[in-house]
Amino acid sequence: MAPTLADIRTAAERIRPYAHRTPVWTCASLDREVGARVWLKCENLQRVGAFKFRGACNAVFSLSEQEAARGVVCHSSGNHAQALALAARLRGIPAHIVMPSNAPGVKKAAVAGYGGQITFCEPTLEAREATQAEVVARTGATIVHPYNDARVIAGQGTAALELLEDFPDLQVILAPVGGGGLLSGTAIAAKGMAPAIRVIAAEPEGADDAFRSLAAGRILPSVQPRTIADGLLTSLGSLTFPIIQERVERIVPVSEAGIVAAMKFVWERAKLVIEPSAAVPLALLWERRFDLTGLRVGVILSGGNVDLEKLPW
Amino acid sequence: MAPTLADIRTAAERIRPYAHRTPVWTCASLDREVGARVWLKCENLQRVGAFKFRGACNAVFSLSEQEAARGVVCHSSGNHAQALALAARLRGIPAHIVMPSNAPGVKKAAVAGYGGQITFCEPTLEAREATQAEVVARTGATIVHPYNDARVIAGQGTAALELLEDFPDLQVILAPVGGGGLLSGTAIAAKGMAPAIRVIAAEPEGADDAFRSLAAGRILPSVQPRTIADGLLTSLGSLTFPIIQERVERIVPVSEAGIVAAMKFVWERAKLVIEPSAAVPLALLWERRFDLTGLRVGVILSGGNVDLEKLPW
Repeated sequence: MAPTLADIRTAAERIRPYAHRTPVWTCASLDREVGARVWLKCENLQRVGAFKFRGACNAVFSLSEQEAARGVVCHSSGNHAQALALAARLRGIPAHIVMPSNAPGVKKAAVAGYGGQITFCEPTLEAREATQAEVVARTGATIVHPYNDARVIAGQGTAALELLEDFPDLQVILAPVGGGGLLSGTAIAAKGMAPAIRVIAAEPEGADDAFRSLAAGRILPSVQPRTIADGLLTSLGSLTFPIIQERVERIVPVSEAGIVAAMKFVWERAKLVIEPSAAVPLALLWERRFDLTGLRVGVILSGGNVDLEKLPW
Repeated sequence: MAPTLADIRTAAERIRPYAHRTPVWTCASLDREVGARVWLKCENLQRVGAFKFRGACNAVFSLSEQEAARGVVCHSSGNHAQALALAARLRGIPAHIVMPSNAPGVKKAAVAGYGGQITFCEPTLEAREATQAEVVARTGATIVHPYNDARVIAGQGTAALELLEDFPDLQVILAPVGGGGLLSGTAIAAKGMAPAIRVIAAEPEGADDAFRSLAAGRILPSVQPRTIADGLLTSLGSLTFPIIQERVERIVPVSEAGIVAAMKFVWERAKLVIEPSAAVPLALLWERRFDLTGLRVGVILSGGNVDLEKLPW
């Protein structure tokens, strides 16, 4: 069942001792460039470097003592895996992370660094799910899905909750969309707190399944997505899709060039390290794909985990 | 004459409408890495991307109406030039910037973007000073030296003033040293507010003239300095040297590898874009050149202006 604003407020209380209340940043040169007033919610400065810690933390600390004792599990090689490992360590319980054997060494090291217990598998979705099922059968661990989970969605919504507590007169909130956990949590928080606010999502043109799904009225899978925004490759979930259908005004595709240009500008001028996925909603502003001129716009900067050896410019 | 703590407080009032009160950041993984508790004063988030705006702004707004009407002038191709141009624009007066004709295009564009009136000259110190003198003769503009100027030093000291207002129980303050404007302002503010605090400077090994000057008891010039920290190439000034002699505990040289490693760590983990000069005091901690284990350490992150096309890793 979809979480409510009350669930997001409960999540905010639950994760308060563990998660950062991230700062909100402005940048005069960015405002000039895009013709709007922009408030950046800096989830790149969240623990593990991404908003994902909020959802994982809320899920882990929602478990009963008995559930928790058996640990948690996910299959992921990205920010969610690190987030779940850290949240579990903070609760003192095991985190089983199923990763494909060909995952980059740096990602394996990051998960292990947070105390995650890695189980390797073949690099197919089938193998990942089968391996995860084996871990559940062996340990009784609770699956924490990266986005199609009400506890995770409620946790992700706490970023928008904080942003609107700090700046209640925003007129628009922008977020990126991949599986839709951040977007659906953002939409529930924002429309719950300020019904007149407009929630708009941005998505890479090369991975525009959410855009097409909203147009089609049903979940269309992400087929061979091609984008630098590697946090946004997944398809919407059964839980996130209806929330987005109901509360999100539109999903706007943006170009790869726009993503890179917006990302570089934020590094150069706002001095913030953001990952390509975080630059996707900024690319919407940057490319003026949709007219938001003169409005007060909040942007969820989703994360800042990048490989400094492989920058896209 | 050297400015006093009272001058720094006056400077803080004077620049308040124009300069950012920059945030102070912590990073748990940095603390673990260096074995101390570190508070980062984020002057990379200052206007023009560097602390230099504080000193230039204080100097410009210290001028009488009559002086101001004739404008200001400096010879610089770095952050000071941009800072002076912006401060002058905010006061609505001309800023004459003498730059060598071979300065990088991006620096020329930045100064022009802030409204600075550029006069080009041959790339020698003699030509720069002669050209500056011509501008003064022609316009009556006031010279604002990048560091050997009491108004500039007082302005630079406002960063440490704010840091100690926010975190009065720091035990150590670290700053980089080039010409000594930031370091001397920092030392006056810090020792004035908290006499027991230790002020320590870091300097690149390849440009260690301040280290050698302190040892020799007189200003030794910076001869063919070689370092990635291009903000720290200059020699100490007649005004900054005695302030540093009196108030700074020691100057610690650090390696180029340490500067790059510390800089990269801050980008990767603190998600902050800092320039090599800002990483110099962090390199002191990083390389454990000097034992500060377990102490509460404030670090002035001097700036964040880097060429993203030419990163040192």
